[in-house]
Amino acid sequence: MDVTRTSLRLTAAAAHKAVGAAVEKAIELGVAVNACVVDAGGNPLAFLRGDGAFLPSGNIARDKAYTAAGFNAATGAFFEALVGEPAVLAGITGQPGVAAFPGGLPIRADGELIGGIGVSGASAEEDEICARAGLQAIGLSEQ
Amino acid sequence: MDVTRTSLRLTAAAAHKAVGAAVEKAIELGVAVNACVVDAGGNPLAFLRGDGAFLPSGNIARDKAYTAAGFNAATGAFFEALVGEPAVLAGITGQPGVAAFPGGLPIRADGELIGGIGVSGASAEEDEICARAGLQAIGLSEQ
Amino acid sequence: MDVTRTSLRLTAAAAHKAVGAAVEKAIELGVAVNACVVDAGGNPLAFLRGDGAFLPSGNIARDKAYTAAGFNAATGAFFEALVGEPAVLAGITGQPGVAAFPGGLPIRADGELIGGIGVSGASAEEDEICARAGLQAIGLSEQ
Amino acid sequence: MDVTRTSLRLTAAAAHKAVGAAVEKAIELGVAVNACVVDAGGNPLAFLRGDGAFLPSGNIARDKAYTAAGFNAATGAFFEALVGEPAVLAGITGQPGVAAFPGGLPIRADGELIGGIGVSGASAEEDEICARAGLQAIGLSEQ
Repeated sequence: MDVTRTSLRLTAAAAHKAVGAAVEKAIELGVAVNACVVDAGGNPLAFLRGDGAFLPSGNIARDKAYTAAGFNAATGAFFEALVGEPAVLAGITGQPGVAAFPGGLPIRADGELIGGIGVSGASAEEDEICARAGLQAIGLSEQ
Repeated sequence: MDVTRTSLRLTAAAAHKAVGAAVEKAIELGVAVNACVVDAGGNPLAFLRGDGAFLPSGNIARDKAYTAAGFNAATGAFFEALVGEPAVLAGITGQPGVAAFPGGLPIRADGELIGGIGVSGASAEEDEICARAGLQAIGLSEQ
Repeated sequence: MDVTRTSLRLTAAAAHKAVGAAVEKAIELGVAVNACVVDAGGNPLAFLRGDGAFLPSGNIARDKAYTAAGFNAATGAFFEALVGEPAVLAGITGQPGVAAFPGGLPIRADGELIGGIGVSGASAEEDEICARAGLQAIGLSEQ
Repeated sequence: MDVTRTSLRLTAAAAHKAVGAAVEKAIELGVAVNACVVDAGGNPLAFLRGDGAFLPSGNIARDKAYTAAGFNAATGAFFEALVGEPAVLAGITGQPGVAAFPGGLPIRADGELIGGIGVSGASAEEDEICARAGLQAIGLSEQ
């Protein structure tokens, strides 16, 4: 029986840079967002609320990041996959911390899940663009 | 007037074995799941998150086990029975801890309800196969 | 800037074995306990409630495991270190999921923190003996 | 009657830089910390968990920042002022989000309170050094 297995972890420096880039991208788009990066265990590594961003959206950003990391899926695609199954959708979105709408992306390196980024405060499409900008700033893309 | 009635209880040893077997079955199927066994009171007896299993699905496994024990029914059959009654379905699935989609099975011995097993992390069908494997490992089957 | 760092993770198989061994040790001691193993992110990997173990102690076992992993310290030693500092103790023990009394041990491999084990249901001393038995069953000891 | 009054607000860019600098300072000191900056309303603006920092200390960092902003005082000085009054200290530290031990500093500009920074994960003294480094990185000092 193996007691341990090796894995990758997202660094704090990368998480910090990613939330900064997501908030910057929102400014470029003329909106204001909150951005959160969690590790693979769903725990916040970095958070940033942009100037003028909606206050309760801070928790939504965290929930999108948690959901993307927790289910290893973009929150938008996750919702699309479940929308035809109302009982499943209700069962899953009723869990604490789960937010099944666009703006959350899993963070992967070498094919391994290492965390999630969630953005909230603008439209679903804008949120997702900002989340993607966060990934790109640290040299990662959706895989 | 009888003040007491005798009942059967699921042992910790069996609950431990069942969650292990459910997680093992998932590995055989090439997926990763969380498994939870609750007693007839709906309280967790045993839990196991397989390597790489979705994190929020841990709570869903527990909810499926609770639902199966709580309503003495497989969660898939439970959903089927209610799907034609959306108001009832909504009222019931809105209760805390209720998950009405496949992957939860009641645990019965000698016709008596003694608990529930819930599995989450793969497809609904795979989850249910793993839950059944958990029962079989302790010499019980759906009755 | 490094985007990732490598780390070790505790396997599900080891977590499963550890909670089983902790509950077994309690039976040897003539008591009944709940045991929980969390990963380094504080999320439950495995749980087992022994036959006859106190029900609310299940959450305490989880909290001790979380605290031991979260602070990389035995919960008993953690309490000893803080008992002279009432404001710090209040600030820390007021956090959700933090339980600063004996029965929780960090799990380390090759000097790296990979999780925590928490046991609750008997005396503080017995709980800690059972937690230690859980570690020993997977070839790890307090380091 | 004046209906409004002008006030200063801390920018997201400064909050982001401050948490980064606090975490960097910890690395210099050979420790690992969580850092949080809140605005004058006590709401998180920026958060960063350093590599290897204690997990539950993330919430403590936030609580120290909230306390420093909320009472417009360094959390260490706040404790000193209250330690002779145990009933008051208990009443105040029992409030949600209040952490009365060193590591939290108010953030002020032109004599006006604009937020708080809280650091947690190392010794109280080290935490406070890191919080101060966060302020210095954005050209502010304790006033």
